[in-house]
Amino acid sequence: MDRSNSGSRGDPNGSENGEVLYNHKKGDDRVVEDNNNNNNNNGTESVEKIFESKEVPSWQSQLTVRAFVVAFVLGILFTFIVMKLNLTTGIIPSLNVSAGLLGFFFVKTWTKFLEKSGLLQQPFTRQENTVIQTCVVASSGIAFSGGFGSYLFGMSEVVADQSGEDNFAQNIKNPSLGWMFGFLLLVSFLGLFSVVPLRKIMIIDFKLTYPSGTATAHLINSFHTPQGAKLAKKQVRTLGKFFSFSFLWGFFQWFFTAGDGCGFVNFPTFGLKAYENRFYFDFSATYVGVGMICPYLINISVLVGAILSWGIMWPLIEDRKGDWYSAKEKPSSLHGIQGYRVFIAIAMILGDGLYNFVKVLGRTLFAMYHQIYKKEAGAVLPVGGNTSHAISPLSYDDGRRRQLFLKDQIPLWIAITGYITISIISIITLPHIFPQLKWYYILVIYIFAPVLAFCNAYGCGLTDWSLASNYGKLAIFIIGAWAGASHGGVLAGLAACGVMMNIVTTASDLTQDFKTGYMTLASPRSMFVSQIIGTAMGCVISPCVFWLFFKAFHDLGVPGSEYPAPFALVYRNMAILGVEGFGALPKHCLTLCYIFFVGAIIVNGIRDLVGKKWAQFIPLPMAMAIPFYLGSYFAIDMCVGSLILFIWQKVNKAKADAFGPAVASGLICGDGIWTLPSSILALAGVNPPLCMKFLSRKVNSKVDVFLTS
Amino acid sequence: MDRSNSGSRGDPNGSENGEVLYNHKKGDDRVVEDNNNNNNNNGTESVEKIFESKEVPSWQSQLTVRAFVVAFVLGILFTFIVMKLNLTTGIIPSLNVSAGLLGFFFVKTWTKFLEKSGLLQQPFTRQENTVIQTCVVASSGIAFSGGFGSYLFGMSEVVADQSGEDNFAQNIKNPSLGWMFGFLLLVSFLGLFSVVPLRKIMIIDFKLTYPSGTATAHLINSFHTPQGAKLAKKQVRTLGKFFSFSFLWGFFQWFFTAGDGCGFVNFPTFGLKAYENRFYFDFSATYVGVGMICPYLINISVLVGAILSWGIMWPLIEDRKGDWYSAKEKPSSLHGIQGYRVFIAIAMILGDGLYNFVKVLGRTLFAMYHQIYKKEAGAVLPVGGNTSHAISPLSYDDGRRRQLFLKDQIPLWIAITGYITISIISIITLPHIFPQLKWYYILVIYIFAPVLAFCNAYGCGLTDWSLASNYGKLAIFIIGAWAGASHGGVLAGLAACGVMMNIVTTASDLTQDFKTGYMTLASPRSMFVSQIIGTAMGCVISPCVFWLFFKAFHDLGVPGSEYPAPFALVYRNMAILGVEGFGALPKHCLTLCYIFFVGAIIVNGIRDLVGKKWAQFIPLPMAMAIPFYLGSYFAIDMCVGSLILFIWQKVNKAKADAFGPAVASGLICGDGIWTLPSSILALAGVNPPLCMKFLSRKVNSKVDVFLTS
Repeated sequence: MDRSNSGSRGDPNGSENGEVLYNHKKGDDRVVEDNNNNNNNNGTESVEKIFESKEVPSWQSQLTVRAFVVAFVLGILFTFIVMKLNLTTGIIPSLNVSAGLLGFFFVKTWTKFLEKSGLLQQPFTRQENTVIQTCVVASSGIAFSGGFGSYLFGMSEVVADQSGEDNFAQNIKNPSLGWMFGFLLLVSFLGLFSVVPLRKIMIIDFKLTYPSGTATAHLINSFHTPQGAKLAKKQVRTLGKFFSFSFLWGFFQWFFTAGDGCGFVNFPTFGLKAYENRFYFDFSATYVGVGMICPYLINISVLVGAILSWGIMWPLIEDRKGDWYSAKEKPSSLHGIQGYRVFIAIAMILGDGLYNFVKVLGRTLFAMYHQIYKKEAGAVLPVGGNTSHAISPLSYDDGRRRQLFLKDQIPLWIAITGYITISIISIITLPHIFPQLKWYYILVIYIFAPVLAFCNAYGCGLTDWSLASNYGKLAIFIIGAWAGASHGGVLAGLAACGVMMNIVTTASDLTQDFKTGYMTLASPRSMFVSQIIGTAMGCVISPCVFWLFFKAFHDLGVPGSEYPAPFALVYRNMAILGVEGFGALPKHCLTLCYIFFVGAIIVNGIRDLVGKKWAQFIPLPMAMAIPFYLGSYFAIDMCVGSLILFIWQKVNKAKADAFGPAVASGLICGDGIWTLPSSILALAGVNPPLCMKFLSRKVNSKVDVFLTS
Repeated sequence: MDRSNSGSRGDPNGSENGEVLYNHKKGDDRVVEDNNNNNNNNGTESVEKIFESKEVPSWQSQLTVRAFVVAFVLGILFTFIVMKLNLTTGIIPSLNVSAGLLGFFFVKTWTKFLEKSGLLQQPFTRQENTVIQTCVVASSGIAFSGGFGSYLFGMSEVVADQSGEDNFAQNIKNPSLGWMFGFLLLVSFLGLFSVVPLRKIMIIDFKLTYPSGTATAHLINSFHTPQGAKLAKKQVRTLGKFFSFSFLWGFFQWFFTAGDGCGFVNFPTFGLKAYENRFYFDFSATYVGVGMICPYLINISVLVGAILSWGIMWPLIEDRKGDWYSAKEKPSSLHGIQGYRVFIAIAMILGDGLYNFVKVLGRTLFAMYHQIYKKEAGAVLPVGGNTSHAISPLSYDDGRRRQLFLKDQIPLWIAITGYITISIISIITLPHIFPQLKWYYILVIYIFAPVLAFCNAYGCGLTDWSLASNYGKLAIFIIGAWAGASHGGVLAGLAACGVMMNIVTTASDLTQDFKTGYMTLASPRSMFVSQIIGTAMGCVISPCVFWLFFKAFHDLGVPGSEYPAPFALVYRNMAILGVEGFGALPKHCLTLCYIFFVGAIIVNGIRDLVGKKWAQFIPLPMAMAIPFYLGSYFAIDMCVGSLILFIWQKVNKAKADAFGPAVASGLICGDGIWTLPSSILALAGVNPPLCMKFLSRKVNSKVDVFLTS
């Protein structure tokens, strides 16, 4: 979705890390193409010299009404998309480029229209563009950090019934608009206040890279050069074409989905046998697009994971049916084969998470130690070719940016007052929403939160890797265990996860935005206000969109349905593990979990040891874990996307690089926005007229006899 | 398939005329692109000067073994394609370009390989290329003129049972390899001998254009220039890609076709209601390709015809069920709604045929009158911008071509002896195959045949319009009426049609080949030999391929099946009409037939009156008639093809013009050749494993209940 915080979105932070790096590269490519490849790193050409003639508006004028109107519309669009992704697989690619393109396109069209009618009062500046981007990203970011596909939905009865354990009333809280609004408003703003005072340290003193924030800034800067604007126009047209195609394709598919197992999403592309093991191409434009945005390694990792699990392990385990687990268990029961799927996936996710947590945190602390004690800026660990800048003298760009960044200050008292006020309100109010979450749990979280928020913002600036979901998992285990099974520990854990994740995510988000603002000369104040307004929008939009999904699609969260919401079950079961321990696992499952937990750590270790050259051939454990539970249909979509991009790059690399992200965004956005009319149709009780059914020859002849009789 | 005789292929000669003109244009485009746009018409540059340095091999050396091996392989390929087209809709586009490209590609690859190994004895010349083209076209031409989709299959029991009338044993002759071989061998060579003596008159004295033959010559000439060879290589690669895609797509579709009404070919793209009226996109790569080759007007005409018939007329007539025709009739009975479909289509085809017959024959006779009596070459009617050449002095090209064309003579006695010998043999033998076809009928046909053959060859040279199928229809009516109902007039008529069509088709084919040979400096002798060998190949290949289809697909010729062979029923019913008169038609059908018969003539008349500019907006009655019986599914495929080409031309006209035919050929060839493995699978009893079924929501829920119970 956005810069650094996309790294935190969806559990596979391994995967998102890759994406973000990719986007960073993209941003650079674009800049190279536009012939202004100058950033802090190489002072050969200067971006700010190009923009020298353009006046930078005051921070108040950067915050225009039109910007927020556009941001609101795009916020809704991207919330739909993120929500759809949340509830189908939990893999959320960086929609950076599409948000940037669309924001630019809308305001540009609008200002052009006004210009022609002579009513234009204020030209469209890159600062305003940055405000839109920040606001869109903040508002749609809530769709991820709100946990609608993970902790929040994991509290619901649907998911609780699947996990089988601890599904008493005190561990269940069904979604409802009222408390979701309240909860999000209480926890989403705290992170913002916690990092505001530290912005100068991170951006100017430590000169952290924030690859995603930098990439976004490059993108926005390039839009506002003549060449860049021209390219952007073409890209928008491409995006529009594929948007329409993808939307119409979604619409077309809809007609054939009367009944379960109907339609293209159940197309047994590789035969019925493969379909039963969830190997099929489901014709999803979204995941083909996701595959085009995600780096090849992610897609291959997902496929490898799918083959390893659904191709090898599950069939082997199913052969032990009646021995390892009772043959009488329902297929969806966690005491049966489903248990292996879910818990082995959790083990891998936790193993990967732990490894990266330790790694990034270690790096962060090490780098900070050097920064602070040695007062030696050049000692920042070499990350992303970022070693040279500290030694070079202050460039023109840096000088101008620094000057504007420091001009508009945000007083410290606002930050402190804001943090304390919101803390007090939420400590009082949150236990009313979740009685299981005692006030002192919240207090403890709020005491440690600023430190963790800072660590995450720092680590993110260094490695582009947000550990928000890992901090969330930490909260699940600690608070869950503290509360204990008898006092609704599962729910307390999940709620604590939400509190923690929101703080940490918004903190790293905002710092990325500061970096983007720094590089586009947008004022820190306007960034802060934009982030606050965006967050407020998100707190209203996201629950509404989720509510629409929840009401429209009755099988939300049911395994094998259109919206299985895989991470809801995963998060709930992590909470149960935290509270109950390993008692509930089927036979040998714990052993397998240990193996995969350790395996994930080892694979990650090897990846870091062998160096970049070989690491690109070693799959990412986090990405491998997702299909363990879901099956490989989306992996195949993603590989199709990869394949398309691969061939395109072979045929015409320049064009593929320039337009690939636009095509992918169009595919994702069109299909994503189709869920809006589709859910409205479902709510209105309009059913598709046809069913495209797939039957084996034998069954088909039976059906034919039945139909003619 | 090939030059002029493609004009005779498939009933819609209106359509093929358009195609051929299109190909002619293509040929020119290509030449312009290759910067050697010089033919007889404008003497600015000379093709022959470019080829001056290259020695022309003797006629014996033009006939290489490798040429015939390649021609044999391609002959089989194109026979499959033509057979498939014959049996699905009867619309056969010009596969000129693909045959040319593939022939060039195979021999070029082979000679390159030999050259590298140092074994090359004879370089690949354009004369040899012409020999291949001629041979391929002659052999696959038999697949059309053999009547496997029309008169010959119209004799069979399957078709006879549908027409209901005159289906006694004496009017039925089921296909069998033996008599098909015999029949084709007896009738296919006569045409060749009948025009051989006249070649100089038509090519050199009358300077007829033969647009298709000229286009083929341009194509071949361009292949042998360095630029042309480079372009051809690229085109072959494109063709190969789409060939593979189309083949794999056919293979993929196969898996889902267990049972009737299964698979993509029954995809109710526009809903079930539209599907019942045969409006759906059936995902056929073949007809998308055909749509790309046929001019827009043909595709639109077919669509207009489909909408007029299945959208308006048939529903209206079906409302009169019980009044106009008995409600108890089976849907496939010709006394019911099917009768209206078939007979109105026949009326239109005959109306269009009559109009064009009179027009082309009139023109031919008028032009011949001028040629012969006024001895004024310039008086050739202005056709295809061909007015100026006669006045201009003999160009270098013409001089050289004329010299080589006249060098190798074919003695007159060979032609006469050949004609008489074959006539005598077939007059004796044919009545043994068809006892209904008395020897004196054949004698009469053979007396008039040379005149008709000459007329057709002449008209074809003038307008690129082969009237072969019209001469065939003439034979059906005359011989059928002569024989009479009680003496198997239906079968006699169909057999006479075959005799007539074969003579007339091969005659115009050979003359086109002479023209191609003239322009590529290939000897008339090698053309003649190549045509004879090609025809002989075709007489063996075509029945075998048809036999494969006949044995593999048991519903061959059944309405609504994959291979309905529409023209088989149309031809049989024409024969019945000729023998029985109009007694068998349902109520008001005759009136409607009159209206459409006259309508077709009037529309054609208007088309000729309003001039080219407006004529392109008036649909062709012949093309409109095809969907009357079949429904519009293939019309939609073809329009999709048109649309693709249209958009492509908008985006990049040069590329679309250069590669459009290659893409289309790839699509047609791949899908066509897939019928080979598909029929083998069917013969081997391997059934597809799956059924993709389309059910309405109501039926689907019933089926779901049935399946779970």
